[in-house]
Amino acid sequence: MDPRVRDHAEVLVDWSARIEAGDDVVLSVAEDTHELAVAVAEKLGERGANLVTTYASDEVSRAYLRAHDADFETADHELALYENADSVLFLRGGRNTFATADVPGERRQAADVAAQPVREARMDTDWVLTLHPTRSLAQQAGMAYEEYQEFVYDAVLRDWETLAEEMQQMKEILDDGSEVRLVKEDTDVTMSIENRVAVNSAASVAYDSHNLPSGEVFTAPADPEGEVFFDVPMTISGTRVRNVHLTFEDGEVTDFSAESGESALADVLDTDAGARRLGELGIGMNRGIDRFTDNILFDEKMGDTVHLAVGRAYGSNFPPGREDEANQSAVHVDMITDVSENSRIEVDGDVVQRDGVFRWEDGFE
Amino acid sequence: MDPRVRDHAEVLVDWSARIEAGDDVVLSVAEDTHELAVAVAEKLGERGANLVTTYASDEVSRAYLRAHDADFETADHELALYENADSVLFLRGGRNTFATADVPGERRQAADVAAQPVREARMDTDWVLTLHPTRSLAQQAGMAYEEYQEFVYDAVLRDWETLAEEMQQMKEILDDGSEVRLVKEDTDVTMSIENRVAVNSAASVAYDSHNLPSGEVFTAPADPEGEVFFDVPMTISGTRVRNVHLTFEDGEVTDFSAESGESALADVLDTDAGARRLGELGIGMNRGIDRFTDNILFDEKMGDTVHLAVGRAYGSNFPPGREDEANQSAVHVDMITDVSENSRIEVDGDVVQRDGVFRWEDGFE
Repeated sequence: MDPRVRDHAEVLVDWSARIEAGDDVVLSVAEDTHELAVAVAEKLGERGANLVTTYASDEVSRAYLRAHDADFETADHELALYENADSVLFLRGGRNTFATADVPGERRQAADVAAQPVREARMDTDWVLTLHPTRSLAQQAGMAYEEYQEFVYDAVLRDWETLAEEMQQMKEILDDGSEVRLVKEDTDVTMSIENRVAVNSAASVAYDSHNLPSGEVFTAPADPEGEVFFDVPMTISGTRVRNVHLTFEDGEVTDFSAESGESALADVLDTDAGARRLGELGIGMNRGIDRFTDNILFDEKMGDTVHLAVGRAYGSNFPPGREDEANQSAVHVDMITDVSENSRIEVDGDVVQRDGVFRWEDGFE
Repeated sequence: MDPRVRDHAEVLVDWSARIEAGDDVVLSVAEDTHELAVAVAEKLGERGANLVTTYASDEVSRAYLRAHDADFETADHELALYENADSVLFLRGGRNTFATADVPGERRQAADVAAQPVREARMDTDWVLTLHPTRSLAQQAGMAYEEYQEFVYDAVLRDWETLAEEMQQMKEILDDGSEVRLVKEDTDVTMSIENRVAVNSAASVAYDSHNLPSGEVFTAPADPEGEVFFDVPMTISGTRVRNVHLTFEDGEVTDFSAESGESALADVLDTDAGARRLGELGIGMNRGIDRFTDNILFDEKMGDTVHLAVGRAYGSNFPPGREDEANQSAVHVDMITDVSENSRIEVDGDVVQRDGVFRWEDGFE
């Protein structure tokens, strides 16, 4: 086994998920992530955790969803599994990023709505989502397999404690602020961050951070007004979506367009009422991720980008006891915009990043 | 997809597991059974069942068990999953039948004991175990891959209703009988079947039968006395075991030997007190299975064989309300003996099969 796979497992189990003896852990294994699953199981055994391994196969999901033409219901046994779990470790991977491309959007939506209690139970655990470099993900990234492995392990096998200290500065600005404004080409949007708690997403549940790799600071904005242009490519539910424009009025998406994949975007926005409100504002600060790979887990963490998500907000962005103010939705879909040039981020009127340079960095004007 | 895979899925979901709309189903997917999992998921979607898919990887289990040197405990989340499930469909397969060969027996035993409540919860569901023909199973059988596929589908894709009628005759003899005696080379053993219910194992939960393929009639014998020679090869927990002799006194194994694999046999017998008592007497009646393939799912169903299992008995072999008389154990290990020649099975002193011929068949003397 490539020693980086074992290193990845160790970061996941110890730094990210903080697994301890007796923890009830669900390990979710996507297609072609077997090798990482073996390495993670070894670490979980060492820590004395209790293990249930699930198979998260896109091809299994596709077959099930396409054949299922009755109403969907919440699966009691699945709910019971996650309600009794302490941690869920998602190993994403797969053999074809378009494996579910021919599942009708309304079918997927109906299943998502029925599964919402299950998703909520999962989010109440110390969950962590990571990714095993597979050939299909290399293909999505437009990279050779070994090149992509390098890219992934460079992003994952980092000095997370040092990065966490760097990101703390942005968290403090957002925690103290009331309003964020983002300005760039075709973009001028304001949103409220009053009474919100920014998360220093340092790839560990100890930081309320649930992605490995990570490297972003995010909060839950409200009442957006204005327009945004998302120029970073992405894939929504198996469909390529490019160059999205969103218009917000009175806190909701009132108009949208996309150069390609507009119907996938429409399916997302039509899921439920919360799907037209914002769930997240994230500022990418991981300059170890040096290129777009058409994968949100990496793209949204990249330095000099900002992302907004429509849909569900994270309870961790609210003061204790006020988590129920978080936007509710069956979906959470991130969209990214490049802020490396001709752009600025303002908090309460003060510019905190201009043309990709933070105000505490050399070169800020 | 090979159309036989879809046919297999249909027999499993409809004939064997009798899945209905709203059933909470766990689909357990072994390594290299992905294709069958996809076909089964499609059928489950058509039926409107709710699906959780688990990954039953021997390599994941090996890594976990070898690394886990603390005490094992029952996994609450796993228990909750199965306590809330209606059906569990096990797709056995794998890429190496010796994948767990270097897990110490006592480690496996300790894990098995801790997992007993989970196993009991699974057995309280409408569970069905079947097998996808993989290359490693073809290798175990000593067969080419396509040859093995033919073998498996010939055994699985049968007219199960007709076979069920044939087996009913043996069920009635066992239900009416009090004592079974088996006589052949190095074998003369008697056991009580008083107050037991024989199961006509016709590969359907509607017959209290949980294997696909099936084709055996089995009951839960008590108080064995005598000796038995098991001349059919087998694999216990990844170890080849050949030519087992067991001696029973006062209902328990008091002496044992094996030409090879004796320590694996010893590990089984030392698991707990119930591991030295009998859990099953089965009479193989599926003459569609025409050769030994070193796989208990097929071998024990083969015509002209008898098998005994040490360990756990099935509640279905007891009258309603008396299921708690069933032998309890963390293990259930079947051992098979050939009765095609120089042998007889007696029930209450009457010969019911001699030299492989049942008394209702032509050629019986």
